[in-house]
Amino acid sequence: MAVIAILGYGTVGSGVAEVMRSNKDIIESKAEQPIDIKYVLDLRDFPGDPVQDIITHNYDDILNDGEVELVVEVMGGTNPAYSFVKSALLSGKSVCTSNKELVAAHGAELMRIAREKNVNFLFEASVGGGIPIIRPINRSITSDRIEAITGILNGTTNYMLTKMETEGIDYDQVLKDAQEKGYAERNPAADVEGHDACRKIAILASLATEKTVNYEDIYTEGITNITTIDMLYAAKLGGTIKLLGKAGFEDGRVWARVSPALVKNDNPLSMVSDVFNAILLKGNMLGDVMFYGRGAGKLPTASAVVSDIVDAVRHKNINLGIKWSEEKQEIMDIDDVNVSKLVRVEYSDKDMAVSFVKKLFKTEDILETEEAYDEFAFVTDRAKESNINARLEELLNCDGINGILNTIRMEG
Amino acid sequence: MAVIAILGYGTVGSGVAEVMRSNKDIIESKAEQPIDIKYVLDLRDFPGDPVQDIITHNYDDILNDGEVELVVEVMGGTNPAYSFVKSALLSGKSVCTSNKELVAAHGAELMRIAREKNVNFLFEASVGGGIPIIRPINRSITSDRIEAITGILNGTTNYMLTKMETEGIDYDQVLKDAQEKGYAERNPAADVEGHDACRKIAILASLATEKTVNYEDIYTEGITNITTIDMLYAAKLGGTIKLLGKAGFEDGRVWARVSPALVKNDNPLSMVSDVFNAILLKGNMLGDVMFYGRGAGKLPTASAVVSDIVDAVRHKNINLGIKWSEEKQEIMDIDDVNVSKLVRVEYSDKDMAVSFVKKLFKTEDILETEEAYDEFAFVTDRAKESNINARLEELLNCDGINGILNTIRMEG
Repeated sequence: MAVIAILGYGTVGSGVAEVMRSNKDIIESKAEQPIDIKYVLDLRDFPGDPVQDIITHNYDDILNDGEVELVVEVMGGTNPAYSFVKSALLSGKSVCTSNKELVAAHGAELMRIAREKNVNFLFEASVGGGIPIIRPINRSITSDRIEAITGILNGTTNYMLTKMETEGIDYDQVLKDAQEKGYAERNPAADVEGHDACRKIAILASLATEKTVNYEDIYTEGITNITTIDMLYAAKLGGTIKLLGKAGFEDGRVWARVSPALVKNDNPLSMVSDVFNAILLKGNMLGDVMFYGRGAGKLPTASAVVSDIVDAVRHKNINLGIKWSEEKQEIMDIDDVNVSKLVRVEYSDKDMAVSFVKKLFKTEDILETEEAYDEFAFVTDRAKESNINARLEELLNCDGINGILNTIRMEG
Repeated sequence: MAVIAILGYGTVGSGVAEVMRSNKDIIESKAEQPIDIKYVLDLRDFPGDPVQDIITHNYDDILNDGEVELVVEVMGGTNPAYSFVKSALLSGKSVCTSNKELVAAHGAELMRIAREKNVNFLFEASVGGGIPIIRPINRSITSDRIEAITGILNGTTNYMLTKMETEGIDYDQVLKDAQEKGYAERNPAADVEGHDACRKIAILASLATEKTVNYEDIYTEGITNITTIDMLYAAKLGGTIKLLGKAGFEDGRVWARVSPALVKNDNPLSMVSDVFNAILLKGNMLGDVMFYGRGAGKLPTASAVVSDIVDAVRHKNINLGIKWSEEKQEIMDIDDVNVSKLVRVEYSDKDMAVSFVKKLFKTEDILETEEAYDEFAFVTDRAKESNINARLEELLNCDGINGILNTIRMEG
């Protein structure tokens, strides 16, 4: 019998309790023992709820109860989650969490403490919601040099971009729709500015490098500048625009960024629509493998948390040995990473503008769309971001050019 | 240090040696120890090959060498693989295999012996080649009731169907092309008749039920009757035709089948093209998750085998407890499974034919294509396969109907 406690009875916390109730037989069979939720920590009471009698408002009840071998942290945020989790690990309890902020900010330290105490710190639900990705990276992709990880890591923005693409609805309206449906928060910055995806790619990059990729070092650009006109050009190029978190690993150098990118239709990520997430891994032997599913939502996320509970309970006092040290992983300056961009140009004189573009960017292909006037688009050659940007500056000073309307990185 | 032996130096066997050489540092770090390939068993010699000095022609050299803790079986077929693997396990050596015939035919028994001997029998590469699927089912999807597993499990047929769809090339020609490219054998029956996919869905269904689903009990239909005209109707319905292995688990009843199916474009399996494979799992909490990648090929398959080697070496004398017993899982008669079918009808009198179809199959939608004369298609209602088939028999006797040209199950 394993005795556990849940910290936080919000969406994910109540989902964990529901999954544990609904699939009790399966879960206890896989865990090879009964699992008892002895406490749920929350500031609120929940009269009438199945957990009403096990609610506590005092974390010390859990921390000081030697029977509790596992703490499930599903509060979100780093305060007080960090101090709660740290003290649980230090007192020899395993921790399972869905908290990407906590894992991105303190994962390596918490994993070290778990190792020292011979318990586990598991976080399958912190990236990709219900999609199995952390455990596959740690335990399935063990014979490959990972060359790249590319993910659609945020369901809210993917829903919005899908809607912009398929229904031609403007960003502002689609954001309102996402907020009404409960996909986006009233303050949507964490999603639309890319901060959520940034923490997730930081976690994945850290697992791949086995060092700490600091999320604050990762260049992060959201989707707030994406328009339905951009989508039309993407379609002309046989692709669509996705918010990608990407990390590359080549010749010992590591880079990472979050930004919108034009994904061609032959890339399996192009097919990931609505609130779905997917993570594409490139291994030097495996080639491409992709993991696809629901990146958020109460029950899918809770299911991933409970799969960690099963794992932790089966491995009581056996540390699973996830390799992710506190050593800092230096990452390349984004300016030094090679890139190619779709560029939208507003012109006053089309012929002059086109001839400067062809000269500066070695391209013959000029794209136009009936839905936009006095502009065209082109795809740059592939070069260091700083070099591309310098030439774009130069282009701005050319006669016939009014301005640059948008630039979007090409994926691949 | 772990000492291992490889049985068979064909495509996968030489791939295993290559992956072990190329990614030695990563593999030994994940395995937390050096791994030494002491023997390679093959009937042939390989002068000039890196393994030339460790080739043996006598399995007893391996079996009787107490240093060898792990045997990698990549010969294929059940004879002599079965007796080799069984004797290895009985003598306390773990086994990793890519051999789907062996796993489908003898998996449960071999797993029992591994349990009894406190070693491991692992088979990640037997389904989906390089795609992590066996380990995720066993260790990640541990909190869900699996409701369905649907897979594109054979790369050869998926390549052929993709080519028929996108290039409008006939079956016979596309088979020839696949044979020339080395994707299909000279005798292509195992692929095109669905036998390969059948063994793979039997393995996945056995893992899901934790009992033995006998592959010989699974209704299996290949792609030999699929035509480019079928593809045109599929496109009209917003879908494509895929060879699916599918198992359903509902209310304690289990069914499984392999057959071509019309997959609508909103199903992520529709996007899996060329030689790629994918497995879509539906969990009662998770919803849909999909695993996508290269289902065959030397290095991807070898990578999956080596991930098993890493796992087995890390768990020396710790059985990983895969639940799949020798108890037989009864499966439903395919006639009792609910299905809906696309039906192509050849008529002598269109109006009469249409009116009989509408009366018998509760459908208003009659599909026609310019590329075919004297025929139309329709989609039946959803009912037991036996009921649908009985009504199709009835239709054949109606005036105005010349015959039924093809029937293809609708997925979902």
